[in-house]
Amino acid sequence: MIQPVLALTTGEPAGIGPELALMLAAEGFAGAASGAGVAPDFSVVAVGDPSLLEARAQELGLGVTVKVLAPGETPPAPCPGVLPVWPVALKAPCRVGELDPANGAYVLEILDLAVAACREGQAQGMVTAPLHKGVIIEGGQAGFTGHTEYLRDACGVEEVVMMLATDQALHGQLEGPSPCALRVALATTHLPLREVADAITAEGLSRVLRILDADLKRYFGLAAPRLKVCGLNPHAGEDGHLGREELETITPTLERLAAEGFDVRGPYPADTLFTPRHLDDADAVLAMYHDQGLAVLKYAGFGRAANITLGLPLVRTSVDHGTALDLAGRGVADAGSLRVALNLAAEMAACGTQP
Amino acid sequence: MIQPVLALTTGEPAGIGPELALMLAAEGFAGAASGAGVAPDFSVVAVGDPSLLEARAQELGLGVTVKVLAPGETPPAPCPGVLPVWPVALKAPCRVGELDPANGAYVLEILDLAVAACREGQAQGMVTAPLHKGVIIEGGQAGFTGHTEYLRDACGVEEVVMMLATDQALHGQLEGPSPCALRVALATTHLPLREVADAITAEGLSRVLRILDADLKRYFGLAAPRLKVCGLNPHAGEDGHLGREELETITPTLERLAAEGFDVRGPYPADTLFTPRHLDDADAVLAMYHDQGLAVLKYAGFGRAANITLGLPLVRTSVDHGTALDLAGRGVADAGSLRVALNLAAEMAACGTQP
Repeated sequence: MIQPVLALTTGEPAGIGPELALMLAAEGFAGAASGAGVAPDFSVVAVGDPSLLEARAQELGLGVTVKVLAPGETPPAPCPGVLPVWPVALKAPCRVGELDPANGAYVLEILDLAVAACREGQAQGMVTAPLHKGVIIEGGQAGFTGHTEYLRDACGVEEVVMMLATDQALHGQLEGPSPCALRVALATTHLPLREVADAITAEGLSRVLRILDADLKRYFGLAAPRLKVCGLNPHAGEDGHLGREELETITPTLERLAAEGFDVRGPYPADTLFTPRHLDDADAVLAMYHDQGLAVLKYAGFGRAANITLGLPLVRTSVDHGTALDLAGRGVADAGSLRVALNLAAEMAACGTQP
Repeated sequence: MIQPVLALTTGEPAGIGPELALMLAAEGFAGAASGAGVAPDFSVVAVGDPSLLEARAQELGLGVTVKVLAPGETPPAPCPGVLPVWPVALKAPCRVGELDPANGAYVLEILDLAVAACREGQAQGMVTAPLHKGVIIEGGQAGFTGHTEYLRDACGVEEVVMMLATDQALHGQLEGPSPCALRVALATTHLPLREVADAITAEGLSRVLRILDADLKRYFGLAAPRLKVCGLNPHAGEDGHLGREELETITPTLERLAAEGFDVRGPYPADTLFTPRHLDDADAVLAMYHDQGLAVLKYAGFGRAANITLGLPLVRTSVDHGTALDLAGRGVADAGSLRVALNLAAEMAACGTQP
C-alpha cells in the first residue's frame, strides 16, 4: 500500500494552527499514529508560509526545521524535527494573536492549494487547522460562511455532510460499557434554532443519509453502515404529542430508504439514543441539528474528536476547535484533535484508495 | 440529625417500578447508600398496593417481606429483605406488562398520598418510580401531562424547574478530566422544537434561574451557586449571525441577574460547554431545551442519573427512565437510577432541614 500524503492547511496565521503543525512535526507525527513513538503510515506536508512557521518554531523553542518543497512535490517520509511545507506567502506580516484582514486571502489560498493537490493526486487527503471566519469576511470575502461550505463550492458539489467522530470510534477502543464509540453526523448545521424544524425535509434528509451511507462504505470500509436517526422533537415527538415532524417527514423518509435496502433506523429520542444499548449496534448517529448531536460528541470525545466532511470528491478532516487566539504562540495548545484528524484522514485515504 | 423518611411511589403497576423497589429492599437499600453493604442514612417506605408488591416479590423470588404500615406511619430503619409500605389499593387486577386505564387513578392516588405525607412532615422527600402518561389520560384524566406538572399543581406553585444530575456530581467523584460531574437544568422542557425559540423569554429565564439558584442553596448547601447558561442557537448565535435570541433576550437577562448578585454566566455555545474547562467551575448548567441538555447528561450519567424537581415546597426526585413494560416482571431492570434518586433525595432532605 502506498503511504497517503496528507496536506495539512495551517489556517489562520495568528492562531494556534501553525504551532499545532510544528508540535506534531517535532515528534515526526509519531504521536499522530496509534501511539507515541510509532512511525505513522502517512506523510504530512504543511501548507502555509515557511517564514511564519520558522519564526513560530523558534519562538516556541521547538527545534523543528521547515523544509520547503515545491507546491505539490511529494514530501519525504516523516522524520522527527522536520516539517515539509508547500509554500504560500503571507499577504502581510503576522503577529501572533492579532487578526489581520489582509491575510484573509492567504488563508483561502492555502485551501485552494490543498484542494488542487488532492484533486490532482499529489495528496490523498487534506486536514484543516482552524481559520477565523470573521477576518476572512472583513478581508473582502463577504460571502464566506465557513471552511466546509468553501470546500463544497470549490469542489463543485451540491451538498456535503458534517460528521464528527472520536478516535475511539476509529480504533474500537471501547473501555467498558460507557463512554462509547461515537460518530455523529448532522442533518442541519449552522442554522438559528427557530429555522431548524422547517429545514428538515424529506428530500434533504434523504440526501444526507445517502451521502452518509456512501461515504461510510467508501472511506470506513463498512459493507452495510448501520445508521440511527434522532427525532427532531423531545422524545422523538411522543407519537405526535410533542411535534409532528417525526410522523410527517422523518419516519416516512426512513421507511422509504429502508425499503431501498439502507440500514436506517429511528427516529429515536435523542436524549436516550446516546447510550450503550443504542450505540452498540450503530455505525453512526444522524442528529437533526447542531447542539442535539455535538454537545454529547464533544463531551464524549473531549480533545480527541475531529470533524469530517462527507460528500466531497476528496478526503477532508478538520480539528473540532477554533483558532484560540488567546492561546496562540504559547505552546500550550492541545494537539489532540489534530492528531485524531490526521489519523482519520489517513485511514479514510487508505480505505478510499483500495481497489 | 434525624434520618429522613423517603416516600417511594411505585408508579405504574404493570411496569418496572414495583420490582425496582423490591430489588433495593432486598439489600435493605444498602446499595442505595454510598456503597453496597453500607447502611443508608435514610428510611424508605414504598407507596402502593401491598398485594401487588407481595406477588411481584414472589414471582421474582426476591425473598422480600412486605410490611404494611398505616398511611403516614413512620417506617422502621432499613433492614435487608423488608419493604415497609403505605398501602394504596389497586382499582383493578394488574398483569405485569399490561397497561389498564382502570388503574390510572391508582397511580395518582399514590402520588397524592406521598405529597400529603411530605407536606405534613411524615416524609422528608418523595422519590417517584415511572408512570405511564398515556394510560392515565385514557383512564379519564384528560388534562394529565406528566408527573412534574401534576406535582406542581398539587403543591399550588406556578413554576417548577427540571434538573437532572448524575451521582458523580453529588459525591464529587471526578475520575480524571472527563467525564465530569454534571447537573443540568432546563429552561423549557416538553415542547415541540419549533416552539422553543419563542418560549425563551426574559421573564421565564429569570424565574428559572432564580429557582435554580434558590434550590441549589437550600438543598445542595451551595452558598453561591455558579450557574452557566447555554445559548439557544448553535455557537450561542455567533454574535447574531446564527440567531438573535442571545443578544436580545438571554444576555440582557443574565446581565440583570448578575447585577443583582447572582453568579450566572453565559450564554455559552452548548457544544463546548460540556467540557472540563467549563464544567470545572460550574455547579449547574442551564440548557435552553430538552435535547440540548439531556443527551449529554444521559450519556455521561448512563444508569446513574436522576431527575429532580426544583421549585416545589418539598423534595422530589425521580428515576430518569420510563416504565419499561417489556422488561417488567423479569427482574432484569437496572435499579441504578433509583439508587441515585434515593441518595439525592436523602441528601437534599438532610440539607434542606438543617437550621
